[in-house]
Amino acid sequence: MWQEIENQLRAEFEFKDFSQAFAFMTEVALVAEKLNHHPDWRNVWNKVSFRLSTHDAGDVITARDHKLAEAIDLIRKRYQG
Amino acid sequence: MWQEIENQLRAEFEFKDFSQAFAFMTEVALVAEKLNHHPDWRNVWNKVSFRLSTHDAGDVITARDHKLAEAIDLIRKRYQG
Amino acid sequence: MWQEIENQLRAEFEFKDFSQAFAFMTEVALVAEKLNHHPDWRNVWNKVSFRLSTHDAGDVITARDHKLAEAIDLIRKRYQG
Amino acid sequence: MWQEIENQLRAEFEFKDFSQAFAFMTEVALVAEKLNHHPDWRNVWNKVSFRLSTHDAGDVITARDHKLAEAIDLIRKRYQG
Repeated sequence: MWQEIENQLRAEFEFKDFSQAFAFMTEVALVAEKLNHHPDWRNVWNKVSFRLSTHDAGDVITARDHKLAEAIDLIRKRYQG
Repeated sequence: MWQEIENQLRAEFEFKDFSQAFAFMTEVALVAEKLNHHPDWRNVWNKVSFRLSTHDAGDVITARDHKLAEAIDLIRKRYQG
Repeated sequence: MWQEIENQLRAEFEFKDFSQAFAFMTEVALVAEKLNHHPDWRNVWNKVSFRLSTHDAGDVITARDHKLAEAIDLIRKRYQG
Repeated sequence: MWQEIENQLRAEFEFKDFSQAFAFMTEVALVAEKLNHHPDWRNVWNKVSFRLSTHDAGDVITARDHKLAEAIDLIRKRYQG
């Protein structure tokens, strides 16, 4: 799912509708705040895309990005089955 | 699931954890705002309970409450399988 | 604002409308998840009420409840001016 | 604030922190769902940027985009004073 492109972990997910996409985003917001590591993310209707990198490390991919990506995957799986 | 008690439609649902309960609540908030009919609801960790009635009709159960309860059920099913 | 009643820190806040009340709740959810201490809270349209106590300490008020109450107040002030 | 660029209404707003940005986004989600018109939006920590256009009209700016932009401004003002 996740691809390493230009020093970023990238992925795009699709949901049933906006409501479901935003509920997913709310869970991601909760885990991001808890990890104190936040995504660069974009939403268009039922799609949510991510570009993860670590600003403090010079905008490259670090263990913190992999950890956030794993947490996002756990949440996503419940929405997409 | 839903019971009619003291002129209210009542139900209580349980989720995996707080994060999941609050994501469910976010979807309910979206549909409630869309229907312009809002619940009396309470959250404790992974539990969310509802008491639905229509204030404008004198705090009794109306078709608007049944419609909101149905919408809540549709959302809940995806979370609880 | 907060009152100690029956071993709980209690308060009720009022907002402009449901949308504002739920945005406030979203910020409280983020801080509660971060503190790993969650409220017993209820929302009816533009009102949000809290009953804080610490389950692990035998459902009494602890420093964790005071800390959560302070965090809630900081958020609330921005909404209510 | 809003600029018309490449058939899109664009704007970027900055908040105190992620928590505040996401609360703002939650209110925008509620109004977007109510209007049944959803933004192309992106969030990075305390920044939220928008690109509004109407897909059904061939991805150009319509009255629906101006209405959503106005609703977003009303919400934003409360956060940014």
